[in-house]
Amino acid sequence: MSIWFTEKQTENFGITAKVKQTYVAEQTDFQELQLVETEEWGNMLILDDMVMTTEKDEFVYHEMLAHVPLFTHPNPKDVLIVGGGDGGVIREVLKHESVEKVTLVEIDGKVIDYSKKYLPKIASGFDNERVEVKVEDGFMYIANSEKAFDVIMVDSTEPVGPAVNLFSQGFYAGISKALKDDGVFVAQTDNPWFKADLIKQVYQDVQQIFPVTRLYTANIPTYPSGLWTFTLGSKVHDPKKVKAERFPDMESKYYTPDIHFASFVLPKFVKDLTE
Amino acid sequence: MSIWFTEKQTENFGITAKVKQTYVAEQTDFQELQLVETEEWGNMLILDDMVMTTEKDEFVYHEMLAHVPLFTHPNPKDVLIVGGGDGGVIREVLKHESVEKVTLVEIDGKVIDYSKKYLPKIASGFDNERVEVKVEDGFMYIANSEKAFDVIMVDSTEPVGPAVNLFSQGFYAGISKALKDDGVFVAQTDNPWFKADLIKQVYQDVQQIFPVTRLYTANIPTYPSGLWTFTLGSKVHDPKKVKAERFPDMESKYYTPDIHFASFVLPKFVKDLTE
Repeated sequence: MSIWFTEKQTENFGITAKVKQTYVAEQTDFQELQLVETEEWGNMLILDDMVMTTEKDEFVYHEMLAHVPLFTHPNPKDVLIVGGGDGGVIREVLKHESVEKVTLVEIDGKVIDYSKKYLPKIASGFDNERVEVKVEDGFMYIANSEKAFDVIMVDSTEPVGPAVNLFSQGFYAGISKALKDDGVFVAQTDNPWFKADLIKQVYQDVQQIFPVTRLYTANIPTYPSGLWTFTLGSKVHDPKKVKAERFPDMESKYYTPDIHFASFVLPKFVKDLTE
Repeated sequence: MSIWFTEKQTENFGITAKVKQTYVAEQTDFQELQLVETEEWGNMLILDDMVMTTEKDEFVYHEMLAHVPLFTHPNPKDVLIVGGGDGGVIREVLKHESVEKVTLVEIDGKVIDYSKKYLPKIASGFDNERVEVKVEDGFMYIANSEKAFDVIMVDSTEPVGPAVNLFSQGFYAGISKALKDDGVFVAQTDNPWFKADLIKQVYQDVQQIFPVTRLYTANIPTYPSGLWTFTLGSKVHDPKKVKAERFPDMESKYYTPDIHFASFVLPKFVKDLTE
């Protein structure tokens, strides 16, 4: 018996992974949620038929979403995560001693519940006393916040389903308002091979609101094309001008101080999207 | 009707691409050769069920294999390509005006023939007067060469089938002998997610022969994990110390002078393979 999960990353291309067992296959109030054990990647969280995270490669996404903005801000204390119900970004944020409070706003409580049960190494930070979890709409939460956060991270699904508002210029304007005067924000912004137009649009939208706008990349093998982008918007601090002494020793598997800077060096066809 | 080509990149994971039509499906003297038109990637060359190159993403591999060593060597005149029967590396090498002669040694003449017919934009350099093509065994060709080349590029398949000798320490010793006293060599060396042991072994083998050994990466979406590595061995010149004035204006889609240097900055788990 041989069961394979196939994600169509485009209409005409996809990845396929052998499944050992299915733990969860459920329609939540917001999306279709699957949690399966795969042979190659360990346990895998799938939302609306898209791979969200796997035990084997999750460290890349979570380290790169968290540490780049947190080392860009000189003294991050109040951090907001929009989405991120698997807990991986929380785990990475908690490595920063300056951070006094992490607020996670996830629209779908089921993602949190099942991640705690089936992805315990990813969802390891939920019980930390510095963490507050709110199960509500991130878009509305942002709209009701003012000068509250040093760093905001948008750890969303693709711009379909519940996350569609999180790729709008109104959302970025709300983020700017919710950030303190020297705040930094970052969002995952898909891949340049299949979603070049999306990256270009988000970059332009963010650039109209934030004085410092930067695109950076990381290799995530279970995400479409293996080359993922992150768009960073900052009111003051430039991630490309971080001082070396800002980097303490920190346990990591992908991120290093050298990778911090190299991740902003874009292949020509990706750089062209920002010009 | 819907036909999909699936490459099992490991026993338990693969990619799958919708096929519009099959041009060639043939057992040559050396390997199984398929040339198909896909919806997502255009025409695709497949050897022994592994994607070798596609019209849409071929530029990454060919630019990164050619330009990194050619800009590392201060004045490359004689260039040898082992493998590379699709012609993509020839096309990139010919962009360098200093190069007086490019010799390509490909074991399987069918790869050249079908690439000329079905991948004309990749196989565009074969008729150039600076190019000489030899259909023979690259391993033996190297063994019989002495101080003949400034740069040698190994554009092989994976270490199965006809390329198995091209991942041996004896081969790297032969390459050293075939290079001039300040020669540079580069080989494609697979990906760090599924083939970490191979990368580690090759790096150690090359390091025992070449004073300067460096690993660099590029994103190739149709190759396993999307993160490809290249191992460079050099007798004198260090690719990380290339002077900025060495880079002329050159048409490219992936490679830039900044990418040249950034490609040597490795994610921590990859860097660990070199230590």
